[in-house]
Amino acid sequence: MEGNTGRGSGRRGRPGYDLGTLLDVAVRVFNERGYEGTSMEDLAQRLGITKSAIYYHVSSKDELLRLSVNRALDALFAVTEEKASTTGSALDRLEHVLRRSVSVLVAELPFVTLLLRIRGNTRIERQALARRREFDRIVSDLVKQAESEGGIRPDVDPALTSRLLFGMVNSINEWYRPSRSLQSTEIADAIITIAFDGLRNGPAREPS
Amino acid sequence: MEGNTGRGSGRRGRPGYDLGTLLDVAVRVFNERGYEGTSMEDLAQRLGITKSAIYYHVSSKDELLRLSVNRALDALFAVTEEKASTTGSALDRLEHVLRRSVSVLVAELPFVTLLLRIRGNTRIERQALARRREFDRIVSDLVKQAESEGGIRPDVDPALTSRLLFGMVNSINEWYRPSRSLQSTEIADAIITIAFDGLRNGPAREPS
Repeated sequence: MEGNTGRGSGRRGRPGYDLGTLLDVAVRVFNERGYEGTSMEDLAQRLGITKSAIYYHVSSKDELLRLSVNRALDALFAVTEEKASTTGSALDRLEHVLRRSVSVLVAELPFVTLLLRIRGNTRIERQALARRREFDRIVSDLVKQAESEGGIRPDVDPALTSRLLFGMVNSINEWYRPSRSLQSTEIADAIITIAFDGLRNGPAREPS
Repeated sequence: MEGNTGRGSGRRGRPGYDLGTLLDVAVRVFNERGYEGTSMEDLAQRLGITKSAIYYHVSSKDELLRLSVNRALDALFAVTEEKASTTGSALDRLEHVLRRSVSVLVAELPFVTLLLRIRGNTRIERQALARRREFDRIVSDLVKQAESEGGIRPDVDPALTSRLLFGMVNSINEWYRPSRSLQSTEIADAIITIAFDGLRNGPAREPS
């Protein structure tokens, strides 16, 4: 994650705010008012600083967006490179990626929320969507491999399955509030239980 | 669904567009530019008509929003009143509500997309969110009842489970494109398989 704030890290001499604080506030305002609907002037007012103080850290609003969505994307890609994501059975690796994605989503909630709202209107947005697709492909490949290893049932479509699994994971951003008592591990447990063992009590239906 | 367009239905004498067409276009523009970012003038231009021709059908942009999100909400509540949603085991009723919600989502895609993006900024939006919560409560009650009937495993939280199930269903609006060959029934089958029987090949883990 440090890489994302690299540009500002050598400049953190000013009192009161640094690039990290700037991003925290910017992403909150983008999520409230929409990226398009937020001006650098809005951000300056919210931060109680001048626009030129923002330009001290970033060259444009687009750069704020890029740094914000990359914070979420870098954290997700880091998950796919963890040891438990790259060694062991594909089923176990898939479970690990799902669990850790839940924890990233909870830890980086505003940044992931911003990422999930992106529609591809600008070059920065299209780059972010391309990275999301790359992440989806990694998950979809894990599902495919788990099928061929016999770890998961053979009658599911890997691409559709990976979309539905991340439908559950990403839905967290719709309803999760950090103040409530639900822990990220409880949510991850529930997703893994539903996805891998199913809700039905008693024997599962045979794969058709 | 007819109830939604009731106000305009007696006035459909003008050639070329009626309230239904107006809503179809309005919801598309709202989804593209955001509701806040769309003016009645934008809508008039897109429709190739005057603003007063729009006011012939609706009193305000807010009314367009209300009619649009109610079209999605009315269709979802209609599902909960179908015979297969109100008779039989809670497990079967839950399965029916999930399946039919998928078909509503696919059939009313732009309207559901608009509904899912609502954040509660206005009275109309807060009313829509309240109806969404009421729908969630119905699903959550079905999960709870299926648990007490022994149809689904006793170790899952009903509210969390219903959120995750609809996380899968609602994710359709992120990636479904009507032009592709995937049918709504195939998506529903995949969701039911994952949710009820799980992906794991072989015996499920025992409920803990």
